[in-house]
Amino acid sequence: MFKKLSEIAELLGGVLEGEDISVEGIAGSDDAKETYLTFMESEKYRSSVEASKACAVIIPINSKRFDKPVIRMKNPRLGFALVLDIFHKREKPVPSIHPSAVIGENVTIGKDVFIGPYVIIEPGTIIGDGTEIYSFSYIGKGVSIGKNTIIEPRVTIFYGCSIGDNCLIHSGAVLGADGFGFVRDGAKQIKIPQIGIVQVGNDVEIGANTTIDRATTGKTIIGNGTKIDNLVQIGHNTCVGNDCTVVSQSGVAGSTKIGDRVIIAAQAGVRDHTIVGSDSIVAGRAGVTKQVKSGTVVSGYPARDHREELKIEASIAKLPEFMSKMEKAISKISGNLSK
Amino acid sequence: MFKKLSEIAELLGGVLEGEDISVEGIAGSDDAKETYLTFMESEKYRSSVEASKACAVIIPINSKRFDKPVIRMKNPRLGFALVLDIFHKREKPVPSIHPSAVIGENVTIGKDVFIGPYVIIEPGTIIGDGTEIYSFSYIGKGVSIGKNTIIEPRVTIFYGCSIGDNCLIHSGAVLGADGFGFVRDGAKQIKIPQIGIVQVGNDVEIGANTTIDRATTGKTIIGNGTKIDNLVQIGHNTCVGNDCTVVSQSGVAGSTKIGDRVIIAAQAGVRDHTIVGSDSIVAGRAGVTKQVKSGTVVSGYPARDHREELKIEASIAKLPEFMSKMEKAISKISGNLSK
Amino acid sequence: MFKKLSEIAELLGGVLEGEDISVEGIAGSDDAKETYLTFMESEKYRSSVEASKACAVIIPINSKRFDKPVIRMKNPRLGFALVLDIFHKREKPVPSIHPSAVIGENVTIGKDVFIGPYVIIEPGTIIGDGTEIYSFSYIGKGVSIGKNTIIEPRVTIFYGCSIGDNCLIHSGAVLGADGFGFVRDGAKQIKIPQIGIVQVGNDVEIGANTTIDRATTGKTIIGNGTKIDNLVQIGHNTCVGNDCTVVSQSGVAGSTKIGDRVIIAAQAGVRDHTIVGSDSIVAGRAGVTKQVKSGTVVSGYPARDHREELKIEASIAKLPEFMSKMEKAISKISGNLSK
Repeated sequence: MFKKLSEIAELLGGVLEGEDISVEGIAGSDDAKETYLTFMESEKYRSSVEASKACAVIIPINSKRFDKPVIRMKNPRLGFALVLDIFHKREKPVPSIHPSAVIGENVTIGKDVFIGPYVIIEPGTIIGDGTEIYSFSYIGKGVSIGKNTIIEPRVTIFYGCSIGDNCLIHSGAVLGADGFGFVRDGAKQIKIPQIGIVQVGNDVEIGANTTIDRATTGKTIIGNGTKIDNLVQIGHNTCVGNDCTVVSQSGVAGSTKIGDRVIIAAQAGVRDHTIVGSDSIVAGRAGVTKQVKSGTVVSGYPARDHREELKIEASIAKLPEFMSKMEKAISKISGNLSK
Repeated sequence: MFKKLSEIAELLGGVLEGEDISVEGIAGSDDAKETYLTFMESEKYRSSVEASKACAVIIPINSKRFDKPVIRMKNPRLGFALVLDIFHKREKPVPSIHPSAVIGENVTIGKDVFIGPYVIIEPGTIIGDGTEIYSFSYIGKGVSIGKNTIIEPRVTIFYGCSIGDNCLIHSGAVLGADGFGFVRDGAKQIKIPQIGIVQVGNDVEIGANTTIDRATTGKTIIGNGTKIDNLVQIGHNTCVGNDCTVVSQSGVAGSTKIGDRVIIAAQAGVRDHTIVGSDSIVAGRAGVTKQVKSGTVVSGYPARDHREELKIEASIAKLPEFMSKMEKAISKISGNLSK
Repeated sequence: MFKKLSEIAELLGGVLEGEDISVEGIAGSDDAKETYLTFMESEKYRSSVEASKACAVIIPINSKRFDKPVIRMKNPRLGFALVLDIFHKREKPVPSIHPSAVIGENVTIGKDVFIGPYVIIEPGTIIGDGTEIYSFSYIGKGVSIGKNTIIEPRVTIFYGCSIGDNCLIHSGAVLGADGFGFVRDGAKQIKIPQIGIVQVGNDVEIGANTTIDRATTGKTIIGNGTKIDNLVQIGHNTCVGNDCTVVSQSGVAGSTKIGDRVIIAAQAGVRDHTIVGSDSIVAGRAGVTKQVKSGTVVSGYPARDHREELKIEASIAKLPEFMSKMEKAISKISGNLSK
């Protein structure tokens, strides 16, 4: 399939500059072939984009010109996503239910649903129109899954949990396993039954091998539009708001409230019973131990205002030299004074 | 089902104060309905418990009174666990072996065992009375599983490993994969065969997507009563004692000895060949690099006595200001001296 | 099976010292029986090796003598690996394809392949001679798997990915799930389609529940001979070189280039778009935020030269005392000066 740049520019709401050639695909600057379009997110990447084989580039509105045709638009990375989607439209599987799927009583299955081989759907589950459930996935009793959601192979969703529309649950994810709740009675740990659920909104993506625990009572909530990466842990009774980004190997402990549009970067952690305000950013590897105000950036451990943390890191880097300098200065002064 | 508070109080060894009403369930203060009981762990939570819809509360012995009926007991959180268990008694599945389960030769299956669809049980395995094994779980050759243990869907237990009685192994856990052992021969890494096992005691819980590696030779051991959360890594030949708590995303490297009743909090790490004494606590995100004495609390990286770490953290927080103050003071003094 | 020490010594290119007895196996010093051989990696472990029940020991060339027969060789740990392999030669399963395996059209299956019960192999996949694929593994469309590779139970390999020869992919690993790529359009996150692949070289081991994401476009690459432990995350478009070691719970973010023979120790992290030079070591829990030069050792967060980091850690440990000492000294001097 070839597409004219003018068509693509129109679709992106961008402006074509240069010859209206046709392209066969789009790729990152390193991976683009001679017949491909690529994109430049900002001037920072100019040298690698200039070195690319691509025959045309999507660039920011105010960037300098290229020797190749360009499409100018506000957010070239968004253009990249949209054009990738044109050239590599995901094909939906032919709706069907494989005979090896074990489907319990009183399961409601919508239209155009795909259920692959070796899927277990326990009784009382509801599966919305256009949803796809792949092999070796286990859907517990009374689970509700919305429309056009994809459950990749080898996913577990335990009893009573609900998943919204247009979600993508990656392989190996476990939703609704017991929260980690015990109470010590002497040396012994008595299990606190975990009878709540996990409630996942619409347009949510949950990464491979990520675990989201069911609430003790009530709900663990993942808001609409939130994207969670691989190997993330979300504890019981925690509420993650809408349109959040939770990056790989980070963890949010139990009973914590994460606002909307929060970014939790890789390998970060948030303590239990903590509030993280909307539009805040928790930097990679940060460890949040107390409330984070809306709209702030925190980093380090214990996490603090990012500017403060940068000052501290700079001070720490100079610490060995500073200590020896101070000790010498004091010693010299004391020497002078005692003369 | 409704239960009278007096019955519940008797069962908990607690004291009822106020009207002997009946309740329909128990839940955390936020989740409780008007017909529910709730609990207050300590005075710290009074405001949210007072705001709860619940019609009665389990409170500590010496707490102030409530406007609602209360049950006083030493450990209200224990009461919560016990009452949850009354109202939400987990139902055991009807004992049965699904015809799609692939069961090898010389497998010994006890009484009242449940084996779901699509389970693999390799030859020579022993499964105790009342044990439940759910779909897509793979039980390797010669594995031994005790009585009344639950193997959730999508669990792997490799050959030769043993699991005790009353255990709960959550979805996605992998027990007995190879320890990570290689030896460099020049640039190449030669695999050290991993022929030991994992031995899990009684009353152990192992979290979703947690990995516990088999020993090189000998055993990796998880003691009785130990509870392990999600996404935890336990290395080969490591021994975790009895009644320990190992929280999410923490890791214990190989050949380490963890004593009894140790708490390893979230995202902590313990180096290989290290001893962590009984009754010690490794704080969240701590990185243990050397022996931890029994009964101590360590935090930070490298982990040290928690009180010492708190002093260091407080000092670090003041470091930028301290440095500039010291430099000014020295400069002023030097100026004065040179006059 | 018993083997004479002289035979073993010859095989290892080592020198036998003492009686040429026969041994029945080999084990670590703690696990060895009276009829077993053990090994001593260095003098550091002498006391535990002396306490071992083993009847003979593999020791370094220049070590002092033992009361037992010894085999001297340069690298006793390599000897341990090789002798373990003699006594515990892994048996290949009888080649066969279980009738319950669901194998798509145009799948090419080599000689002597084992495919266990409940395996899904989607259309167009190529599986090399001698390869073994175990239960509940899902092999996507057009995947290519080389010769003599082992895919343990419950592995997911998504469409288009390629795995080399002699690899070992542990249970729960997910190769080729979508990279975590989104672009914000206002508050909403638009998914960037992930259409690249994961390419794994020869002789690679990938740990249990580890996740390696497919590239956005192009490839995520794991080089020949690289060994990856459990619960590791490798981001999209990242290239890990040859003969690397990536230890448990570490993560490498997207578009990063790791050279050859690099060691990334446990719970470490490497930022996206970063270069880590060949033969470098990233210490446990280090957080790499900028380029690491070849042949260097980095530690801490942000990661820096390890010797520098050790100085900083030592300074930090003394910080509370240093601060109070400095303040007293300054105060005393100021007092003297004002007299």
